[in-house]
Amino acid sequence: MKAARLYEYDPDMNVELKIENVPPPTITAPDEVIVKVGAAGLCRTDLHIIEGVWKDIMDTEGNLLPYVMGHENAGWIEDVGSAVTSVKPGDAVICHPFRSCGICLDCRYGHDMYCDHGQFPGLGIDGGFAEYFKTNESSLIKLNTGITPLEVAPMADAGITAYRAAKKAAKLLNPGGYVMILGVGGLGHIALQVLKETCGARIIAVDREPAAQVLAKELGADIVLDGGPNLIEEIKELTGGGVHVAIDFVGEHGTENTCWKLLRQGGELIMVGYGGTIEVPTLELVANEIKIGGSLVGDFVELVELMELNADGKVKMHQTEYSLANINQAISDFKDRKFTGRGVIVP
Amino acid sequence: MKAARLYEYDPDMNVELKIENVPPPTITAPDEVIVKVGAAGLCRTDLHIIEGVWKDIMDTEGNLLPYVMGHENAGWIEDVGSAVTSVKPGDAVICHPFRSCGICLDCRYGHDMYCDHGQFPGLGIDGGFAEYFKTNESSLIKLNTGITPLEVAPMADAGITAYRAAKKAAKLLNPGGYVMILGVGGLGHIALQVLKETCGARIIAVDREPAAQVLAKELGADIVLDGGPNLIEEIKELTGGGVHVAIDFVGEHGTENTCWKLLRQGGELIMVGYGGTIEVPTLELVANEIKIGGSLVGDFVELVELMELNADGKVKMHQTEYSLANINQAISDFKDRKFTGRGVIVP
Amino acid sequence: MKAARLYEYDPDMNVELKIENVPPPTITAPDEVIVKVGAAGLCRTDLHIIEGVWKDIMDTEGNLLPYVMGHENAGWIEDVGSAVTSVKPGDAVICHPFRSCGICLDCRYGHDMYCDHGQFPGLGIDGGFAEYFKTNESSLIKLNTGITPLEVAPMADAGITAYRAAKKAAKLLNPGGYVMILGVGGLGHIALQVLKETCGARIIAVDREPAAQVLAKELGADIVLDGGPNLIEEIKELTGGGVHVAIDFVGEHGTENTCWKLLRQGGELIMVGYGGTIEVPTLELVANEIKIGGSLVGDFVELVELMELNADGKVKMHQTEYSLANINQAISDFKDRKFTGRGVIVP
Amino acid sequence: MKAARLYEYDPDMNVELKIENVPPPTITAPDEVIVKVGAAGLCRTDLHIIEGVWKDIMDTEGNLLPYVMGHENAGWIEDVGSAVTSVKPGDAVICHPFRSCGICLDCRYGHDMYCDHGQFPGLGIDGGFAEYFKTNESSLIKLNTGITPLEVAPMADAGITAYRAAKKAAKLLNPGGYVMILGVGGLGHIALQVLKETCGARIIAVDREPAAQVLAKELGADIVLDGGPNLIEEIKELTGGGVHVAIDFVGEHGTENTCWKLLRQGGELIMVGYGGTIEVPTLELVANEIKIGGSLVGDFVELVELMELNADGKVKMHQTEYSLANINQAISDFKDRKFTGRGVIVP
Ligand SMILES: [Zn+2]
Ligand SMILES: [Zn+2]
Ligand SMILES: [Zn+2]
Ligand SMILES: [Zn+2]
Ligand SMILES: [Zn+2]
Ligand SMILES: [Zn+2]
Ligand SMILES: [Zn+2]
Ligand SMILES: [Zn+2]
Ligand SMILES: [Zn+2]
Ligand SMILES: [Zn+2]
Repeated sequence: MKAARLYEYDPDMNVELKIENVPPPTITAPDEVIVKVGAAGLCRTDLHIIEGVWKDIMDTEGNLLPYVMGHENAGWIEDVGSAVTSVKPGDAVICHPFRSCGICLDCRYGHDMYCDHGQFPGLGIDGGFAEYFKTNESSLIKLNTGITPLEVAPMADAGITAYRAAKKAAKLLNPGGYVMILGVGGLGHIALQVLKETCGARIIAVDREPAAQVLAKELGADIVLDGGPNLIEEIKELTGGGVHVAIDFVGEHGTENTCWKLLRQGGELIMVGYGGTIEVPTLELVANEIKIGGSLVGDFVELVELMELNADGKVKMHQTEYSLANINQAISDFKDRKFTGRGVIVP
Repeated sequence: MKAARLYEYDPDMNVELKIENVPPPTITAPDEVIVKVGAAGLCRTDLHIIEGVWKDIMDTEGNLLPYVMGHENAGWIEDVGSAVTSVKPGDAVICHPFRSCGICLDCRYGHDMYCDHGQFPGLGIDGGFAEYFKTNESSLIKLNTGITPLEVAPMADAGITAYRAAKKAAKLLNPGGYVMILGVGGLGHIALQVLKETCGARIIAVDREPAAQVLAKELGADIVLDGGPNLIEEIKELTGGGVHVAIDFVGEHGTENTCWKLLRQGGELIMVGYGGTIEVPTLELVANEIKIGGSLVGDFVELVELMELNADGKVKMHQTEYSLANINQAISDFKDRKFTGRGVIVP
Repeated sequence: MKAARLYEYDPDMNVELKIENVPPPTITAPDEVIVKVGAAGLCRTDLHIIEGVWKDIMDTEGNLLPYVMGHENAGWIEDVGSAVTSVKPGDAVICHPFRSCGICLDCRYGHDMYCDHGQFPGLGIDGGFAEYFKTNESSLIKLNTGITPLEVAPMADAGITAYRAAKKAAKLLNPGGYVMILGVGGLGHIALQVLKETCGARIIAVDREPAAQVLAKELGADIVLDGGPNLIEEIKELTGGGVHVAIDFVGEHGTENTCWKLLRQGGELIMVGYGGTIEVPTLELVANEIKIGGSLVGDFVELVELMELNADGKVKMHQTEYSLANINQAISDFKDRKFTGRGVIVP
Repeated sequence: MKAARLYEYDPDMNVELKIENVPPPTITAPDEVIVKVGAAGLCRTDLHIIEGVWKDIMDTEGNLLPYVMGHENAGWIEDVGSAVTSVKPGDAVICHPFRSCGICLDCRYGHDMYCDHGQFPGLGIDGGFAEYFKTNESSLIKLNTGITPLEVAPMADAGITAYRAAKKAAKLLNPGGYVMILGVGGLGHIALQVLKETCGARIIAVDREPAAQVLAKELGADIVLDGGPNLIEEIKELTGGGVHVAIDFVGEHGTENTCWKLLRQGGELIMVGYGGTIEVPTLELVANEIKIGGSLVGDFVELVELMELNADGKVKMHQTEYSLANINQAISDFKDRKFTGRGVIVP
């Protein structure tokens, strides 16, 4: 089969994936499935892998390369192991990125992402930038009638990370309340749509990019701001004291210490982006009774819920498609922010 | 001032309110306010009062009549008592129907409706079918800029009763879930709009009236049914096993024993309408782990939240206006279901 | 191995289980485990099986007999299938009664008990009234150090059913609140201990049996009543208006229509026992805003939590032991209420 | 009446309160009450007031002195305003420290502490280090039968601050979980007792003072540690990965950056103490999905709940009594940590 493989890490990213013919994966355990890839989302994590950022975590012995990235996958079942009963060849599916164990206590509580016994195809084992890839039954969700893998692939990671944060936010919000989304990119534009459908609060979208501001407006943000130097005062004024919830999809370059200052008494900041360090006086935390918490990739059931919103036409992924042969162009365009929303690779 | 007063109870409702000149109310306690009525919603409860249904509750001594009904009021502040600080003459306000005490433990928990020390203007003391009526500071909510009393008066009771039920339902629902609304009248059409904005679930609206079905479709119900004899099978089929939540705005004539049979395992029925008696085998409750619970008029803060949804253009009251002079016509039309949504009296 | 097998259903229960030698179970699938039974709780459900009540559900073809009952099992791992990694021979375990599929959406939400693809060893396939029985990896919880299978076996069903109800109740209660437990038997005495540890509310225990009343007092119930004819007035008086939560472990013979009348405004009734039919006017539901809901057997994680409470010495099963050879005596004593708490069979 | 008045701020605290005769307070508004002080808790805040820390907040015009401190008050009703109906002279009461307005939206949601229109007797207006002080009806809770003001006065601030944090923690905890309390002083020893009664989790108490360690053990902490340099490793080892919830009653001198490192994935830190600055990499927040939030003084209903726990014998204040004449000695002993628990002034 055709696959795009990484042969070398390079902090400067002056390397290209090699499009080549490799043997397709085969079933070796009863719960495994082979998926014919319909589309695979391109993620900032993929750039970091190329840069070597993940080397110490997923390639400790230095023998991983050459390997196939791609962890935001959707496609059709090609083959199934002997114990698989819930899908059959031909079924259209989206693949949760994490093959959790299903047995440990975290899994039993439904916190798949806390499982210590799982695997991420595309991060340390071959993924979806290829014609076929292998995962297991418990990571699969059948697509609703009329939905194609191409429309939804990046939901598998970008989508659910945004969905999880938005769901947390929605639980904290009432009509008349304010929620701020900082960063209306691949994740933020999904969070915006989810909040629009699941809470009656007002949405303030903040992004420096004019194209992202236009998208935010189209998707129904009540207020769109460019995040200039007076953002804190501006928002306190607009909201009569600060927002009830803020979601920070950036988390570095100073935003990490902007958002908690925008909160109203009793407010909560949900961090999704990362990189920076938060410095907050405990007096501020206590006197304003504010909360700051991180948010991970969504669990399996959160991908199920997001796919239902998508099937109902309530949440759509804005994306740009590239063929597998053009994956290096896609990576280059992504670095240079030549497209809005998400880039998607189609084998 | 002009007021419409009831002089006599009649189970057959062959009596008319008398439109007459009476002395306007005056401030007699420091927390009281006089409201110039902008509009007052006409409620099924008003019909029941005329019929004498409420006589034993609010007129035990038989000396209440003649008196002014009207408990769904909005208008402008005319005069305020010495301790009132949050509103001033001229302010446009909507009035929560219940003047709760603010001191008892139920009030302190925010459960105003459980307060044993409050009063309902319009139910046992003079209400809003007049040019002026009296309430107290703690029942007032200032209208958002651009909102007129006429647009919102029935929100004060019909609106918040529906809102409270819809809010309970929304907390139980996830995207991909199903909620059924039984009865798309003055309350149901508000619940439908609230659910549309505050949960990502699918809405099934059920009503026998074609006009109500049209309204439900316009307001965005995903599925509209007429509630024929096969409703249970139909809904189990459509939903793959039953709805997650049902709200019953009828509660009599058999619906009270239809809705719990429509629930999926783990589902919940919220009763707002009443009249009938539920008969449910405990085995059904346990084996399906279903829940059945009543829902009251909304608390003060629920009216605040509903007014914010209204100000944001997300929830609107569908209504028909009558002048105070025509109140007897309004009552007659209401009995004969000559209008959809709510009837509103304008002094 | 020795096993007690049922050869015949009899509504009058004039049959005995036959203690005989049968071939032990063997591993036939990669996720299976053989457990050497340490103890197996005797359940009212076992009596119902003998009576033939479950025949139409679990023996539709009429070829189940002879078979081994026993669904409340704990013991030691004897053998494991090829895919089992979380336990090894010799480990002491308690077995959740339900082998859920782990793949369906209900399972993924952590609602194991709603899974449509599972099996109950002891109900339709051979269970634990034997020296060995077979279950699968995902139903196993390793015992904490120092805990023996004998001490905990009935926790696997009686325990978690009570725990689930008590956990629901605790979430609804605050200090100063009142919770009533109706029926302090094998389930009720566990719920009492759980509530004692997990909410600060006051516990009212009601049971007609003097021995159960003594046990309730010993376990720390604040008020113990015998449930006489004035129970409703008595409790309304004691609590200043009714209890916040009631748990009904009986659910028949009239209790099913006693408990909802004992609730305070906003209160909730949790039904665990069943048999009777609830008849409640919708007006009562709405005006008092009360809720009535059933409660099932607990999920896997609830058994984990209960085992932790047990390991910490906070919740203990009161039980009477019988050898496997004396199982027919145990059944007879259970019918005649000759012991308090739970009967346990030790092979 | 006798009162202890502050005449001068001094950062070095080389000043004494003057015990003198002053006119008692009188009713000047219909909702006011005069309370004959039974006891008044001595708070770290009182020390800060003497030091001048609060001068810029509550004495902006510089004309407050001489004035009477004391905001943790309990006693008996001496006189009531014309609108007061819920208490009468002679009633024993505890006084929530904050006279909230009852009208604003925060008050209506039950968030009294967010009210912008309230007053704190003892902080900016005369308080309870005197024979009488003035507050209003809505801050009063009648004591349960048999409870004296002396036993409970510090519950009014120290108690509810601890209770609020403990209640938040309890909601996050399950049996088998771990909660750490850092600092077992006047607040921490209350939180410990509350957690003991309201969640089934294991309690780890950490304090450098041997006397506090003894108290923690007596009150039922499962594990007591002295908070040495290896605290993080020690706790990760003991808990198998970190605690589920930590409550930091210190919040300065380095603890503010210790506690979040002790959390398990998905864990939450509740800050009550303050002074230091938290520095946390956003990557830590996100990858471990941890949360950090401040906690304020408890609301009115939280004081009600705490008083119920106290009346039931479940939570007790450990305290040392001083006469009003000896208040300067009490202050001095507090500075020098000569007593454990709380100091209480008795007029
Ligand atoms: Zn990704
Ligand atoms: Zn980066
Ligand atoms: Zn796992
Ligand atoms: Zn009404
Ligand atoms: Zn009240
Ligand atoms: Zn059982
Ligand atoms: Zn399942
Ligand atoms: Zn204090
Ligand atoms: Zn200090
Ligand atoms: Zn206020």
